[in-house]
Amino acid sequence: MTYRAPVADIAFTLKHGAGLSRTLAQGGELGADDINAVLEEAGRFATDVLAPLNAIGDRHGTPFKDGAVTMPPGWKEAYRSWAGAGWNAVSLPAQWGGQALPHALNAACIEMWNSASMAFGIGPVLTMGAAEALANYGSEHLKQTYLPKLVSGEWMGTMELTEPQAGSDVGALRTKAVRANDGSYRITGQKIFITYGEHDLTDNIIHFVLARLPDAPAGNKGISLFLVPKLLVNEDGALGTRNDVRAHSVEHKLGIHASPTCTMVYGDHGGAVGYLVGEENRGLACMFTMMNLARLAVGLQGVGIAERATQQALQYARERKQGRAAGAASSAIVEHPDVKRMLMTMRALTRAARAICYATAGAIDGSHGKSDAAKASDGRAALLTPVAKAFSTDIGIEVASLGVQVHGGMGFIEETGAAQFLRDARIAAIYEGTNGIQAIDLAMRKVPLSGGTVVRAYLEELRATVKAVQAMNDPALGATGARVAEAVDSLDRATTWLLSKIEKEPQSALAGATPYLRLFGTAAGGCMLADEALAALRVAKGEPAGRVAVARFFAENIAVQAGGLEVAITEGADGVNGAEAALTA
Amino acid sequence: MTYRAPVADIAFTLKHGAGLSRTLAQGGELGADDINAVLEEAGRFATDVLAPLNAIGDRHGTPFKDGAVTMPPGWKEAYRSWAGAGWNAVSLPAQWGGQALPHALNAACIEMWNSASMAFGIGPVLTMGAAEALANYGSEHLKQTYLPKLVSGEWMGTMELTEPQAGSDVGALRTKAVRANDGSYRITGQKIFITYGEHDLTDNIIHFVLARLPDAPAGNKGISLFLVPKLLVNEDGALGTRNDVRAHSVEHKLGIHASPTCTMVYGDHGGAVGYLVGEENRGLACMFTMMNLARLAVGLQGVGIAERATQQALQYARERKQGRAAGAASSAIVEHPDVKRMLMTMRALTRAARAICYATAGAIDGSHGKSDAAKASDGRAALLTPVAKAFSTDIGIEVASLGVQVHGGMGFIEETGAAQFLRDARIAAIYEGTNGIQAIDLAMRKVPLSGGTVVRAYLEELRATVKAVQAMNDPALGATGARVAEAVDSLDRATTWLLSKIEKEPQSALAGATPYLRLFGTAAGGCMLADEALAALRVAKGEPAGRVAVARFFAENIAVQAGGLEVAITEGADGVNGAEAALTA
Repeated sequence: MTYRAPVADIAFTLKHGAGLSRTLAQGGELGADDINAVLEEAGRFATDVLAPLNAIGDRHGTPFKDGAVTMPPGWKEAYRSWAGAGWNAVSLPAQWGGQALPHALNAACIEMWNSASMAFGIGPVLTMGAAEALANYGSEHLKQTYLPKLVSGEWMGTMELTEPQAGSDVGALRTKAVRANDGSYRITGQKIFITYGEHDLTDNIIHFVLARLPDAPAGNKGISLFLVPKLLVNEDGALGTRNDVRAHSVEHKLGIHASPTCTMVYGDHGGAVGYLVGEENRGLACMFTMMNLARLAVGLQGVGIAERATQQALQYARERKQGRAAGAASSAIVEHPDVKRMLMTMRALTRAARAICYATAGAIDGSHGKSDAAKASDGRAALLTPVAKAFSTDIGIEVASLGVQVHGGMGFIEETGAAQFLRDARIAAIYEGTNGIQAIDLAMRKVPLSGGTVVRAYLEELRATVKAVQAMNDPALGATGARVAEAVDSLDRATTWLLSKIEKEPQSALAGATPYLRLFGTAAGGCMLADEALAALRVAKGEPAGRVAVARFFAENIAVQAGGLEVAITEGADGVNGAEAALTA
Repeated sequence: MTYRAPVADIAFTLKHGAGLSRTLAQGGELGADDINAVLEEAGRFATDVLAPLNAIGDRHGTPFKDGAVTMPPGWKEAYRSWAGAGWNAVSLPAQWGGQALPHALNAACIEMWNSASMAFGIGPVLTMGAAEALANYGSEHLKQTYLPKLVSGEWMGTMELTEPQAGSDVGALRTKAVRANDGSYRITGQKIFITYGEHDLTDNIIHFVLARLPDAPAGNKGISLFLVPKLLVNEDGALGTRNDVRAHSVEHKLGIHASPTCTMVYGDHGGAVGYLVGEENRGLACMFTMMNLARLAVGLQGVGIAERATQQALQYARERKQGRAAGAASSAIVEHPDVKRMLMTMRALTRAARAICYATAGAIDGSHGKSDAAKASDGRAALLTPVAKAFSTDIGIEVASLGVQVHGGMGFIEETGAAQFLRDARIAAIYEGTNGIQAIDLAMRKVPLSGGTVVRAYLEELRATVKAVQAMNDPALGATGARVAEAVDSLDRATTWLLSKIEKEPQSALAGATPYLRLFGTAAGGCMLADEALAALRVAKGEPAGRVAVARFFAENIAVQAGGLEVAITEGADGVNGAEAALTA
């Protein structure tokens, strides 16, 4: 079956979870109709143009010959029509041709591109991140030359950190940059796992490359960021000669076959021409602009693939007849309680992850400026970004795997499509910082932000939701109030424990990082879904029955994991750190 | 890296968990040295001969042309040498050329074949099951003609239930059998998803086919089992003409590419010659002999793939240097607490599933005869079989997915091999009865066996382990005693709840089936690992530190999920069954 963009669902969560209602209430140029129009149009494009390319991309992959990549049939046309319609520019600065719409709205669009095709969606994410970094840190000349085309999507961008010895440990990178006489630099070295490092979608590719100057300090503090165009750009803006960079090979991967993952070689002929972005040795800070947006976008990939897997499984379960549910002569498998549980798990996890990601984007939108509210929103964005990335991509895999299961034997047959979602989903927990790195970022850097006040403020907000649910006392909510209350209690106690360990017993804190992130996503997701149920109950058109059912299922069947996660965090560390004897062979 | 059969580990669990020590203590022909010799030899074969074929099989698949399947390079030689060494016959009856060794010992071998290559391992499992069914239900003439060759593995067998409209609901099958004048039958129809339905490993293939006689009652009570040879066998035992059965196509699957999954067509020319096995309309009972063994064997596939994924991830984590753990200059990633948690989760889940599967096999071994002990053991085997199948294959997927994650970006590259384990593992939760069907079997048929006395007796045994752990009070065990006690308490309460619902509110019981099976596996696995730790502490050569570390990790970090599962079972059903409003689009 094909993907149908869930525009109404998305609009609901955007308005109620991501603070877009607040934005709208504050007036300004953006109205509710504009938001709906953008979502409708994006949904149409994702459904009609991109979704049909997904299986084609999986089958064709990206053949590599003589240094060139051929994208799958139809991809170039689709990309150009996508960029031509302005989709690359949704939340990029107006000054450079962007539409300057909220990140939250772009987040919704990114989800839809990735539901339609993860292999397609990941390319533009990097271009958007590169444009943001260049807008924030680039020189005026660099911006004039490259930014309009990166904003429009006429050229695509890449993000190049990884080297064979430098994966999660980016400070170990060795690619070299030396100063040239004309103010530019010459780059030599090798980068691996470079997404969309080479392709034929656009006439030029702008590589954003981390490298090290000869006199740079060791580690993270000696890394600089360079813009390295595939084709040099003449003074008049026309494309010039080929730069000294090439793709050496393309990886053979488990999934996202249509996303060319390249090994890039710099400096076969003395060094590629690169231009410094930001200051020397401050490259990691610039890259973090790209990376935070990319992390949220990868979280949205998790949401997108989970949504698509859920849609396909649900449609199959409604059509496939097998066995008899109680009292029926012949039943679609959706009627069987065990299948219902799988489908509700898929739906509830997907909705929770969506709410977390959109809220993160909303926090980014609120973080501009110097007001106290902006600062608080900035802290909120920092806190939620690793959760948005890791929780959403973990559940993306789980939901895609359940989608295979709902299909039974058909799920294991490639033509069905369910297996592709699982193959594709698997990468999102790895790239842009593995989910382990996200958990460590959350536990060791984000939780202690401002002495813990950022996380404490968030917990207070979750408690307010809990109180509202308990006050509503609608029988259809079942034990939702009690279960989310317990989950928030667990998160609260685990947070207190964590804050007491980060300095004194970092190994213990680190051992609990992954279950802590899961607990955080579980408690936050449960509260957000409950909040959506309350909002739906308040407005007639909110389809309250469906939202209440999702919130209730999540609370009673998923949020109940919170207690076990809490114990694993607060009492499991010694068993982790003392496990050498079991890890010798 | 290559697989190394963990023979010492396996022997330990066999002796302490599967009751082989009991068998040995009772005397008889089988000594401890014999067991070790078999395991060593099987381990060598799996490691040296089969494991290297795994990636080759994945790449080559099983090309299909003109009705014939070509197996991957080296597979025919390996199979023939495997069968020639007697590995197909380990636990088959001596009367027909088998070695009549305990099923538990064969279970250990099956685990190793599947660690080496799941695509290889699944074929013989079906042959062994077919031989058991034939030995139990076949006529003397059929046994004389077919059994020696199925026991030796000279011919392979298949198990054919599924049709397009009859998957989990086998009673819906339509393949027809009509009586012929000579006492045989003529079979017409189509079967799908037939594992090893066609191949070139053996000169003949013996299909065990479920079909319906013209005057058969509807549903499960009108199904008969037929033996349908690919090549008819002459009176003198020589191969005769081709029977009227052919493979129509081979599926393109997510994994186990070297296991040919065929659509089989019967009766292009009037009907394939088939011979009744057992009585008319009693075929499902005969098929269950095959199916129960096959279910345990598929559980062992979960263990096998989990073991191999763990070995590969552990080796990678010990070699790959990245970042610095506390106080170190440069660290292998195994030193990082978050990676340690992943590896320990892999190891602990694998060991727990192994213990459950071997205990199931041990119960099968104990079930022969008419003594009370045999009857109790028969009940135990019935109770544990769905847990062995579903828990082990669920954790097979989880462990293989963690294995990908431990490898970081390298895990997503097919050449690494970690991704193949995940692709292969995915089918085991589906075939031989989906894990949802297993959960329903456990909750609705096995738990109420003999009025619940079978499950109650098992709970008592788990409680005895809990008491022994608490009595041991070794500080290295941490909170193992407390955590497994809580898990068993949760299982006990959930069992009581379930027993009260099965008759009166079957929909509620059904809604909790999957979390109940997970809770069962979690509590049982935690107790079995604790029991192994105690056994290791009692004997010097038991490598107590490693076993204690695994038991402790499982108890403190995995068994803690029991409470949440209990609440989902006992309080989550209404939220599942009332979820229609969230499953409409």
